[in-house]
Amino acid sequence: MDKINIGLLGLGTVGAGVAAILLDPQGRHPLLADMALRRVGVRSLHKPRALHLPAGILTTDLVGLVQDPDIHIVVEVMGGLEPARSLILQAIQQGKHVVTANKAVLARYGAELWQAAREKGVYVLMEGAVGGGIPIIHPLKQALGANRLTRILGIVNGTTNFILTQMEAAGMDFAAALATAQSLGYAEADPRADVDGEDAADKIAILATLAFGVQVVRDEVYCEGIGGIEPVDLQYAERLGFRVKLLALAQRQGEALDIRVHPTLIPRSHPLASVQGVQNAIVLGGDPVGEVMLQGPGAGAGPTASAVVGDIVNVAATLRANSGYHPLLGATGAIPTRRLPMDEVHTRFYTRVLTQDRPGVIGQLGTSFGRHGVSLESVVQIGRQEELAEIVVVTHQVREGDFWLALEEIRQFAAVMAIPTVLRVWS
Amino acid sequence: MDKINIGLLGLGTVGAGVAAILLDPQGRHPLLADMALRRVGVRSLHKPRALHLPAGILTTDLVGLVQDPDIHIVVEVMGGLEPARSLILQAIQQGKHVVTANKAVLARYGAELWQAAREKGVYVLMEGAVGGGIPIIHPLKQALGANRLTRILGIVNGTTNFILTQMEAAGMDFAAALATAQSLGYAEADPRADVDGEDAADKIAILATLAFGVQVVRDEVYCEGIGGIEPVDLQYAERLGFRVKLLALAQRQGEALDIRVHPTLIPRSHPLASVQGVQNAIVLGGDPVGEVMLQGPGAGAGPTASAVVGDIVNVAATLRANSGYHPLLGATGAIPTRRLPMDEVHTRFYTRVLTQDRPGVIGQLGTSFGRHGVSLESVVQIGRQEELAEIVVVTHQVREGDFWLALEEIRQFAAVMAIPTVLRVWS
Repeated sequence: MDKINIGLLGLGTVGAGVAAILLDPQGRHPLLADMALRRVGVRSLHKPRALHLPAGILTTDLVGLVQDPDIHIVVEVMGGLEPARSLILQAIQQGKHVVTANKAVLARYGAELWQAAREKGVYVLMEGAVGGGIPIIHPLKQALGANRLTRILGIVNGTTNFILTQMEAAGMDFAAALATAQSLGYAEADPRADVDGEDAADKIAILATLAFGVQVVRDEVYCEGIGGIEPVDLQYAERLGFRVKLLALAQRQGEALDIRVHPTLIPRSHPLASVQGVQNAIVLGGDPVGEVMLQGPGAGAGPTASAVVGDIVNVAATLRANSGYHPLLGATGAIPTRRLPMDEVHTRFYTRVLTQDRPGVIGQLGTSFGRHGVSLESVVQIGRQEELAEIVVVTHQVREGDFWLALEEIRQFAAVMAIPTVLRVWS
Repeated sequence: MDKINIGLLGLGTVGAGVAAILLDPQGRHPLLADMALRRVGVRSLHKPRALHLPAGILTTDLVGLVQDPDIHIVVEVMGGLEPARSLILQAIQQGKHVVTANKAVLARYGAELWQAAREKGVYVLMEGAVGGGIPIIHPLKQALGANRLTRILGIVNGTTNFILTQMEAAGMDFAAALATAQSLGYAEADPRADVDGEDAADKIAILATLAFGVQVVRDEVYCEGIGGIEPVDLQYAERLGFRVKLLALAQRQGEALDIRVHPTLIPRSHPLASVQGVQNAIVLGGDPVGEVMLQGPGAGAGPTASAVVGDIVNVAATLRANSGYHPLLGATGAIPTRRLPMDEVHTRFYTRVLTQDRPGVIGQLGTSFGRHGVSLESVVQIGRQEELAEIVVVTHQVREGDFWLALEEIRQFAAVMAIPTVLRVWS
């Protein structure tokens, strides 16, 4: 083949970033000089664009692009479920390699895409789908093969990390911090996918599939957002030696997969606790490597384009090396797995309870937790709200189901007026 | 080929870790089940070893091992310059791929090895040489190809980071912290290669070569150790908002390469400032990715073996894919480059000056720095030592040569009794 021809689907922020790199290869990997941006599929030919593209490569015929016999690699950065999923499938059917940053499609239809790709002997690469510019998929698939991977912990959503950092640093409430994030372009006008944890759930589903070779049912990922967190909880967490982060987590638990996204108290000495603002970071745990953490800009045109083009370079390298199907780039099989039910999860908890200020309440709480096998690390009357005592309980590792049974009982106590916050604690 | 046969040179800590993984592939990358540990080269057959090896694979005939026609990949984890260098070269001449963790050989003879490897069409992989278990070489060569790389900053020596963390946390002096490190097995009986910065210099030389495609003359890497740092400097750094780390740094400066290792004040808000104990961390800066940081255990049998075996898996993958010479695994050319002389480096400085306690001294210092174009951020009388005033100066970015001229002048002032510490400041 002469040049390696790229067809690009989507010319939004990331697409424009990808095109800009492909059109300006100087000083980057030499393989980039060996490629041509052949066609760019967009919704409208007439939208004004800052990027200067070669004449005639823009097209609205997206199906024509994925079926163009001259195109070797299809790069999908349109986002959304459809038509992205169908276009990726058609590209695969045409024997084209695919590079995508589409976390929503991968989290829901990954197994379908990977199977189709295996059958056609093509690659579906996805470094841009998780962690923006951080090399994470690549190390997972290609550098850590010696390991039995055990655990993934990540701050994989920059919007929520920015909001939590703002709430903590400036004492803002959630609504004010969200408004700040929106005004800076770090949060969408409709922020639900981010603040409800759905974006993070897409990402941890993809990472768990790659790390453990299991098939994750996206809708089974337990997902809890940050909308209910009050500034006072961040202050108490700080006093107790923690920071609050939206943690995405996947770990093997026997034959089951413990996979969840929720706000979490993380000890200040843990590397993830230092991850500030829109940064992302992912900790990979394995035997014998121990734990490695990869950190960087989790979103944005430049970082995500870096990841997408890195994947293009990887495909191009195997093409230029006349390689057969490469075992480290190819999709691994995804074995169905049982998700560990939340009741069976073992975790620590932080909970804040408002009670009438009278003797014996702390004893009552302790007795009730104890009866359900919930071992406590600390029970502290940490503050007051008007007439009420504010009690913060931190547990040891407990079975989640036991904790909720105890809490249900405690909620019935006459002295207990409210339980405003329950958060999990990492350790 | 039937199995992919591995010849292992060295059965010390890392070698034993590598052998243990190869002999127990279950649950790791499937390619590991497709390999055989064929021969293990050691100095003595009779040394007692914890690891149980298959009968008959131990040998003291190291040359025989690298010339064995049945061996496909030679793994060199003996360390030291010779015979490691010669054995690697012979393995290459025999058309074998090489995986090595030998930073000393790579930093000094890398160009020779890579050229030989290119000519024979084999790979020399080296993930274990830098950063222990952290995937760093791999992301650099294979995941960040879209970028123009601009800068590498690293904490790449766990021993010195442990010592500095101890000095800071426990207020120990250098000798006591070193003794603690030695008692815990984090420092060698002869700790010079670590504490003098030579080990870090080896590593940054390798990283700079890979990131920038330049040939680094190892002996030209500027190298300053941590032996001269006093606890009081760590305290003052803390008060000024910094932590002190042994920083290894390489960045392009026009056509020249700014490459150096020295203790450095790093702002507490910088991710590298949070790297504690024996951890390593490396920041890669590039356009358009911005900065990514990779962090993890920088040494130890498990982490380093993880990196070495990861490389073996990469070579095995190209063999199983019948790949031609793979452009991302192959050595890149190393173009000779000019090292930026230290006088031309631009950096900030921290210096501690002991002066007689009399009026006008701070003005004198300021005037002298100003005369040499050294712009100051702060001059503070921060403490006293017996009769003397202890003045700490922090500069803006200045030309290093100008700073030293000013300091030479200041040293002559009658009121200046001593200048115990000069450290560079990162920002």
